[in-house]
Amino acid sequence: MKMRWTRTAAVALAACVATLGLGAARHLDAKPVTVADLLAGAPAADWRVPKPDDTLYLELTSGRVVIELAARAVPQHAANIKSLVRAHYFDGLAIIRVQDNYVVQWDDESHHRPVPADVHPSVEFTVDAHAAARFEPLPDHDLYAPQVGFLDGFPAGRDPRTHTVWLAHCYGMVGAGRDDPAESTGAELYAVIGNAPRQLDRNVALVGRVLKGMELLSTLPRGSGEMGFYVASEPPVPITAIKLAADVPEAERTPIEVLRTDSPTFRSVLAQRRERHEAWFKHNPGAIDLCNVPLPARTPEVH
Amino acid sequence: MKMRWTRTAAVALAACVATLGLGAARHLDAKPVTVADLLAGAPAADWRVPKPDDTLYLELTSGRVVIELAARAVPQHAANIKSLVRAHYFDGLAIIRVQDNYVVQWDDESHHRPVPADVHPSVEFTVDAHAAARFEPLPDHDLYAPQVGFLDGFPAGRDPRTHTVWLAHCYGMVGAGRDDPAESTGAELYAVIGNAPRQLDRNVALVGRVLKGMELLSTLPRGSGEMGFYVASEPPVPITAIKLAADVPEAERTPIEVLRTDSPTFRSVLAQRRERHEAWFKHNPGAIDLCNVPLPARTPEVH
Repeated sequence: MKMRWTRTAAVALAACVATLGLGAARHLDAKPVTVADLLAGAPAADWRVPKPDDTLYLELTSGRVVIELAARAVPQHAANIKSLVRAHYFDGLAIIRVQDNYVVQWDDESHHRPVPADVHPSVEFTVDAHAAARFEPLPDHDLYAPQVGFLDGFPAGRDPRTHTVWLAHCYGMVGAGRDDPAESTGAELYAVIGNAPRQLDRNVALVGRVLKGMELLSTLPRGSGEMGFYVASEPPVPITAIKLAADVPEAERTPIEVLRTDSPTFRSVLAQRRERHEAWFKHNPGAIDLCNVPLPARTPEVH
Repeated sequence: MKMRWTRTAAVALAACVATLGLGAARHLDAKPVTVADLLAGAPAADWRVPKPDDTLYLELTSGRVVIELAARAVPQHAANIKSLVRAHYFDGLAIIRVQDNYVVQWDDESHHRPVPADVHPSVEFTVDAHAAARFEPLPDHDLYAPQVGFLDGFPAGRDPRTHTVWLAHCYGMVGAGRDDPAESTGAELYAVIGNAPRQLDRNVALVGRVLKGMELLSTLPRGSGEMGFYVASEPPVPITAIKLAADVPEAERTPIEVLRTDSPTFRSVLAQRRERHEAWFKHNPGAIDLCNVPLPARTPEVH
């Protein structure tokens, strides 16, 4: 049995990890340095295995969506979600809203389900000042944050003046929906399926991101109700269960590795994506938007 | 018979024309000024009807995708595409590539179809200097262009130094795929279905944008081949035909109106989206990314 690691079909935040452009891209794979080349040559130490205790499996009839919780950035929401998951709160619920170019949302719309006593509503729009030390800045400017970069492998913004850091609404990020006031628990969740709605940054607690199975969410039928809610004639998409990987027998887990954002390979990927020297590119962008930075994940292929 | 204009289900570039946030948004519809309010109160003069001669109908078995050609910005590509359409070049072809968070692409992969003699490969990455006078700037900065705004109702970038303007790769924009060298004809087309791949700006001739039916493209199954190409086991999505609205009997056309980007209502929409004063927003972004600006379109509902 031979194991080979391959990119997951859905690398959240990565428009085209191993691709170069359009049309010609197929032929350009022969060029010397591509992201695919860089990933293929990455030493094992440049990859990390997300903790099973911080990994969610959103089980749909169409397959499994793997979500990494940002447990260090939003500890209360991560604890809440784990408690909800272990109480089977999400099992048998459904995706009730899919708004094109915006979000996929699931929750207990009827509010019939009891929430465990240890679930505490909280406001985690920004991360405590200690996190600033872990923040890895991007060199490029940003419209929505004084500084952008990565925190614990998630896209993030930072304000050096207030020493605050926050997670950013890029494609594939998962957030905790809320009413007004600002508190949320994580009982209502959504995933970003369109152009980064960065205006939501610092307005919602982002709780993680999709590592694999993003296409199971992004291809769901759009709801025809207001804001993409499914109407009566559109059956909601059932959620079989949400499980914590740690609670799943090892044989049933999805092996997955994520490229470390503090690794040399990631720095090479970033450099390759900021300056486009491939022949196909006639205009070199010379910069990259936070939400266009590939955050590669891979699963092993068994032969 | 009463006619009422409603937003189209897919307003390309608009994450959430009439929505405010997540969770609470349903309740917030009672707030005084929303984009929906602004659109409902817009005078007829603030809307325009795209020219039937510049409007494409991409007919899929699931329905019709309405595309407005940027005929003034890319005249050669628009002429090429009209010639290809009238020669039935696209009829019976298929969507052959759907890459998550990137593009949907269709063309004659086998290159078996004859291209009409009046189709001329050309490079229209930027628009002639005369267009600069029509450019309507946004106040906000941008990472990929010295200045951003709108040209003929399409999102665009501008370099005041070189007096060039170009269309921008926002969600729902349609472009002409190409190999290397830079020329393209429009015989290979793609639509953006993910986070704005702005690194492609000034590298591809963008030819228009989807006004309606975006969800028919964005929900297509992702291809499992490299770069999202469909593999043998994944049947390509057939294209019944691409027609020019002008060639379709009036009774079979899709009535559609687009909010003028030079209208007072559009300026109000932009102001509302840049500064979020709704109670739900705890942090006011105070700026907006070009590709998050709603470009509303509406179709009449017949009662």
